[in-house]
Amino acid sequence: MKQVALLGCGTVGAGVARVMAENAAYLEKSVGEPVTLKYIVEKRDCTGEPYADKVVTDFSLVENDPEICAVAECIGGVGVAYEFVRRALLAGKSVVTSNKQLVAEKGLELLDIAREKGVYFLFEASVGGGIPLIRPLTNCLSANRIDQIFGIVNGTTNYILTQMIECGQDFDSALKEAQRLGYAEADPTADVDGIDAQRKLCILADLCFGSNVPPERVRAEGIRGVTRADTAFADKLGYAVKLLAYAKRVEGDRFTAFVAPQLVKKESLLAGVGGVMNAVAVRGNAVGECLFYGAGAGSMPTASAIVADLLDTMRRGAGRTYIHWGPEKPERLADPEGVPFRWYVRCRNGCINALAEQCLSDNGECCCLTAPMTARELEERFAGAEILSRFRVLD
Amino acid sequence: MKQVALLGCGTVGAGVARVMAENAAYLEKSVGEPVTLKYIVEKRDCTGEPYADKVVTDFSLVENDPEICAVAECIGGVGVAYEFVRRALLAGKSVVTSNKQLVAEKGLELLDIAREKGVYFLFEASVGGGIPLIRPLTNCLSANRIDQIFGIVNGTTNYILTQMIECGQDFDSALKEAQRLGYAEADPTADVDGIDAQRKLCILADLCFGSNVPPERVRAEGIRGVTRADTAFADKLGYAVKLLAYAKRVEGDRFTAFVAPQLVKKESLLAGVGGVMNAVAVRGNAVGECLFYGAGAGSMPTASAIVADLLDTMRRGAGRTYIHWGPEKPERLADPEGVPFRWYVRCRNGCINALAEQCLSDNGECCCLTAPMTARELEERFAGAEILSRFRVLD
Repeated sequence: MKQVALLGCGTVGAGVARVMAENAAYLEKSVGEPVTLKYIVEKRDCTGEPYADKVVTDFSLVENDPEICAVAECIGGVGVAYEFVRRALLAGKSVVTSNKQLVAEKGLELLDIAREKGVYFLFEASVGGGIPLIRPLTNCLSANRIDQIFGIVNGTTNYILTQMIECGQDFDSALKEAQRLGYAEADPTADVDGIDAQRKLCILADLCFGSNVPPERVRAEGIRGVTRADTAFADKLGYAVKLLAYAKRVEGDRFTAFVAPQLVKKESLLAGVGGVMNAVAVRGNAVGECLFYGAGAGSMPTASAIVADLLDTMRRGAGRTYIHWGPEKPERLADPEGVPFRWYVRCRNGCINALAEQCLSDNGECCCLTAPMTARELEERFAGAEILSRFRVLD
Repeated sequence: MKQVALLGCGTVGAGVARVMAENAAYLEKSVGEPVTLKYIVEKRDCTGEPYADKVVTDFSLVENDPEICAVAECIGGVGVAYEFVRRALLAGKSVVTSNKQLVAEKGLELLDIAREKGVYFLFEASVGGGIPLIRPLTNCLSANRIDQIFGIVNGTTNYILTQMIECGQDFDSALKEAQRLGYAEADPTADVDGIDAQRKLCILADLCFGSNVPPERVRAEGIRGVTRADTAFADKLGYAVKLLAYAKRVEGDRFTAFVAPQLVKKESLLAGVGGVMNAVAVRGNAVGECLFYGAGAGSMPTASAIVADLLDTMRRGAGRTYIHWGPEKPERLADPEGVPFRWYVRCRNGCINALAEQCLSDNGECCCLTAPMTARELEERFAGAEILSRFRVLD
């Protein structure tokens, strides 16, 4: 029998407990012996809740219990979660988590501790929720040079943009609806301003390019600047506006990474990813383009990935290579403003000189799609025009 | 240094040699030491071709060389490929393959030998080509009860159907074009009649439901019966016709599995999978629906998966659970004709009595979508009508 502990029993933690109970037979089949939840570390009073009999408040019970082989961290943030994860690893227990902030900010250190202690630190659920993504990247695509990775990794903003595109809502009313449905928090900053996507992108870039990318080094532009005029113009041009986490290899073993709204061709699969769903596309030099789609959040999908990681820590042997990446190399990270892209520009009095490929005008505004150029070239080209929005176009 | 052998150097084998050469640095990073190709076993005269210096004709060189830790089988079929794979496993070498016929027909036996010998038999490339699919299924989704798996697993037929849908071509001219472009063989039977998809479906069903499903027990209907009238009617109803490999859990620990054209909602991601691309959707009781998309065939994408499997055989330790499934349990496989589905029916003089939800008529024919019913109920309902086509509707 394998015994595990759960840290935190909020939405995700409760999902983990439920998946472990309901799918116990599948877990046992996968590992070859029963897998049981021994403790739930939670400060809240859980009297009357399911699994209340497993609740303890003292983490050191877990830390000092030799029967516990793995710990699922579902607390969130980098305060107590960081402390407990570190202590669990140092106590020789594998740790799995869905905590993107923890992985993005402290992943390098925690992976080093795990390696030193001969245990695992896994985080499949930290990007794309239940979608199998991190293991396919590190494992199934390991024969490739990864050239590009991009996708929709935040369900809240995708819901808002989908409402704007499909129902003609403006940002404010779409946000209110998302809040009413529980898809957005009362303070929506982390989602709407791209901070959540930024953390997830850092994890993807760490894995794909092999050196640590701290979140503060990655530009994140959210969706507050996307207007109904933009979604309508984009639609006429054959595109949908999506908030993308985007990273791409550039010349000289460098790469660029940023979060920003982009125009995505309507016929592409990414444009068809609606509501709160997530999808990530990967381009490798052998495999070409792959795409992974599914529920990027929610109690049960996230728990699906966390529990799979728990099983993985039990199943694997000593010979396995640990997931890892190296320390930050600032010189490898290219500023996206200096990398050429095609642009969508909406402005007043500016399209004429823009060498635009496609141009539309309406209501005193015009919009156009440009040839590939850097942000600096774009500014020169549009000197004198009043730029209202500018977004990159995904090729 | 890890040394491997390649069996067969046709389209896929040449891709494997090329990926190993071009991406050598990524392979070494993944495994922690260089990975080199020592032999290519090939009967053809390869003088002047790249890698000709590695070509040998005698398999026993590989079999008896203790330096060879893993073998990639790229011969195809179940003749000599089966013999060599069996001998390689018995000689204590791990084997990886993209050969769906071999895995579908002999997988159970070969996995048993691999387990006994403590080596690996891996086949990520056998379904969906380069798309990470089998490892995500067996690993990342291992905390789920898999309820349904379905998708587009044959690029040739998807290309033909895409041409029929988008360009209004009929089956014969679309097939000719596919042959001209090299997407279909001179004898297109295995693709067009669903046999290739049937083999792949068996592998997916083996993995998802845990008992061996021999190909001859799975109904396969190809696309010869899909007409322009069907693709046009479907379009008007808001659907696209796709050849799906489909398996679903039904009551009493049973499941059904079949290959047949189905109507897929136009807004769904599957409907957007065009040309020769593949995509497979999985529904698990925790994760909900996931989808995996990419190139399902071709030299380099298939090689991407084969080489990743090779790396996996080197990377993993003794504690890992082997992929496996149990022997056939005929009583678990439910006949799809007895499982209720919604239907699309095109007929003469029949829709009136069909309790149809949606109905269209044109040119003396009519078509309709029914409520869920079994194939037998459908026949009763349409007694007296001349049924021209009937396809299930994907929900």
